[in-house]
Amino acid sequence: MQVLKNPPQESWKTICLRPQLEFEFLEGVVKNIFYRVKASGDAALKEFTVQFDQVNVEDLKVTPQEIEEAIQKVSEDLKNAIQSAAANIKKFHEAQRNDLVSVETMNGVRCWQKAIAIERVGIYIPGGSAPLFSTVLMLGIPAQLAGCREIVLCSPPGKNGKIDQTILFAAHLAGIATIYKVGGAQAIAAMALGTESIPAVHKIFGPGNQYVTFAKQLASQQGVAIDLPAGPSEVMVIADESADPAFVASDLLSQAEHGADSQVVLISKSESLIEKVQHELDRQLPLLPRKELAVQALANSLSVLLSTDDDMLRFANEYGPEHLIINTINCDELGEKVINAGSVFLGPYSPESAGDYASGTNHTLPTNGFAKAYSGVSLQSFVKYVTFQKISKEGINILGPIVEKMAMAEHLQGHAEAIRVRMK
Amino acid sequence: MQVLKNPPQESWKTICLRPQLEFEFLEGVVKNIFYRVKASGDAALKEFTVQFDQVNVEDLKVTPQEIEEAIQKVSEDLKNAIQSAAANIKKFHEAQRNDLVSVETMNGVRCWQKAIAIERVGIYIPGGSAPLFSTVLMLGIPAQLAGCREIVLCSPPGKNGKIDQTILFAAHLAGIATIYKVGGAQAIAAMALGTESIPAVHKIFGPGNQYVTFAKQLASQQGVAIDLPAGPSEVMVIADESADPAFVASDLLSQAEHGADSQVVLISKSESLIEKVQHELDRQLPLLPRKELAVQALANSLSVLLSTDDDMLRFANEYGPEHLIINTINCDELGEKVINAGSVFLGPYSPESAGDYASGTNHTLPTNGFAKAYSGVSLQSFVKYVTFQKISKEGINILGPIVEKMAMAEHLQGHAEAIRVRMK
Repeated sequence: MQVLKNPPQESWKTICLRPQLEFEFLEGVVKNIFYRVKASGDAALKEFTVQFDQVNVEDLKVTPQEIEEAIQKVSEDLKNAIQSAAANIKKFHEAQRNDLVSVETMNGVRCWQKAIAIERVGIYIPGGSAPLFSTVLMLGIPAQLAGCREIVLCSPPGKNGKIDQTILFAAHLAGIATIYKVGGAQAIAAMALGTESIPAVHKIFGPGNQYVTFAKQLASQQGVAIDLPAGPSEVMVIADESADPAFVASDLLSQAEHGADSQVVLISKSESLIEKVQHELDRQLPLLPRKELAVQALANSLSVLLSTDDDMLRFANEYGPEHLIINTINCDELGEKVINAGSVFLGPYSPESAGDYASGTNHTLPTNGFAKAYSGVSLQSFVKYVTFQKISKEGINILGPIVEKMAMAEHLQGHAEAIRVRMK
Repeated sequence: MQVLKNPPQESWKTICLRPQLEFEFLEGVVKNIFYRVKASGDAALKEFTVQFDQVNVEDLKVTPQEIEEAIQKVSEDLKNAIQSAAANIKKFHEAQRNDLVSVETMNGVRCWQKAIAIERVGIYIPGGSAPLFSTVLMLGIPAQLAGCREIVLCSPPGKNGKIDQTILFAAHLAGIATIYKVGGAQAIAAMALGTESIPAVHKIFGPGNQYVTFAKQLASQQGVAIDLPAGPSEVMVIADESADPAFVASDLLSQAEHGADSQVVLISKSESLIEKVQHELDRQLPLLPRKELAVQALANSLSVLLSTDDDMLRFANEYGPEHLIINTINCDELGEKVINAGSVFLGPYSPESAGDYASGTNHTLPTNGFAKAYSGVSLQSFVKYVTFQKISKEGINILGPIVEKMAMAEHLQGHAEAIRVRMK
């Protein structure tokens, strides 16, 4: 990790820049995938699955038997863990419910805002080295709580033509039964455009590689909503001398092991803490199976020495980290001042891992400084807020003259006439 | 208006398609504007203002004196109307507050979600034939209620080098004092990139012409959030024989007068109502100053005869209108079944005009079927939901083994180690 000591404030903006992601070179490939999925539907999906996943899939849709078999295979231990995590996620997201706001703004003028579930949503779960069943919970549970009528899940099949058993178990737990064996940009294209077997959805959620990311951008340009703009995962840790350097190092490593492009930043007022954490990193790193990825991530990472709490907060808010761990004596006080972050972890016993899996908060969060304007996934991500109004005859007599006056001042006489005709 | 009688359900999707907007031809122009604003800042903005607005602006920023003068000039009548509208908008948006959700998901595991205002937001208000001061209220009031620290407003100056007095009055009422005389794509570029005098913002709101729309798309691709994807304004009216045809026609016309590309749809089970509305349109239309625009909009518009309430609702939900007026005897019952709409107006005395200006609901709404996945602007549009967690030593002992199990099953040992080191 590079150590910056009291960098001048003018340089913060530049220090906080993430590596620029360039996806445009993928444009040809991904647009061609969309074109072929639009033209040939399921047939195109099966061809791409042979090409990219090296497996021939007869039926794209996972059968109830396959789900049943998967459920049998997951160990009881892991099932129990997943069920406990699911219960916490459910509890926290259920509490976010905010279904109806109703106000009489004037006599006879009733206005309300109602949360209505998005009818059809799609969840993408990547394949690859690790089965990300935790993401199934993070997206499937709020979708189910919101009451989305159709929840579609796509994930690439393994070489055996099947989707990982733990993913199927988690999907089952989240009440998702419409699951397709298709991955990559072609899965996104299928959910955006619809095919014979896969319905087009209104919003697509979930992580993925650069092809998936670009495909989600393309879908969003074509009017399908997406969860969040994407970027590599990040953690920032603010720590003081009260922090156990072993804890801090383990938090930095748990982010660094995600991939070579992971962003890891340590902020402290204590030079000695920064040094101790470096020693701990050197000690803990060789013990990790994914150490090669972590080494690359750490090479791009930063420790920043700053001189006051205010500076640390200002720096954190300028960076806008996806995950922010505040491991200091005064963590509550500092936490109150956080403006830009996806999810915040307070105190020595709140590692990012807890929120990644099981505490109840969502792990689909804004990266790349998007926390300045975007929220992580929540129950709200699966609903739309529709407003309603009902005005009585008396109400329009009070409200009408106000509307009429304003409409005429905006030179929109038709708007005024719609009032006048009712006040006659 | 074209009349479709009981069109077969297979055709609905096609009927509901809006005219495709093609903006790509603007790409060169708008990208050049961004490039020049990035390179030359305020100087570029002033040059574009000479070029596009034919006026030489010395100082981009509106002075307190100019605001004071504008306030003096607005008539007391109009001021009172705007103040009443502002009070209603404030009341309805204030009620949407949902600042804190806090849950102990397990013993010692406290999770909360906190609404935090987006720090810097930009509001764009177009110039042109009519001063859209109502939009200043619709965006400025929730921004102020949310607590955004910096609210920037850009609007093009008129030939006299000033921004319309009513816009300045409305801005003052919404507590906005940072106002710049700049319009078009260059205003969006300035708020996205920042210049010497205009700060870069995190989210841009507001309507505009095709250049502004494309500029917002470009800003959004560069990581600045925007309120909504754009499209021409729309109204759908569901009416039965209880509806006064004059009311229905006035509602259709108030939308049609917006512009030639406005979308207007009437749905009914009654052929006779459809005919009567047509007569009323013929009678009312010639009386409108903006009749030429309205005629063009009506030429592209539809009346659809359907045979059941269910069909009408299904059609409306397939269309996903920006504004939906339900002017029927059973409007409450039908209103309950609405899934996809921006804002819904129930009963004979709830014209769209009421919500456009003064009832309290927001008028910045999803068009073009985006209501299937997007909400209109609300208090929520100006905040981010940040999650927090604080876990105690006891809490991590309960939660830790669950996280450990799941992390190992996802092959992320570093995540498990961050738990183990704390449980030692």
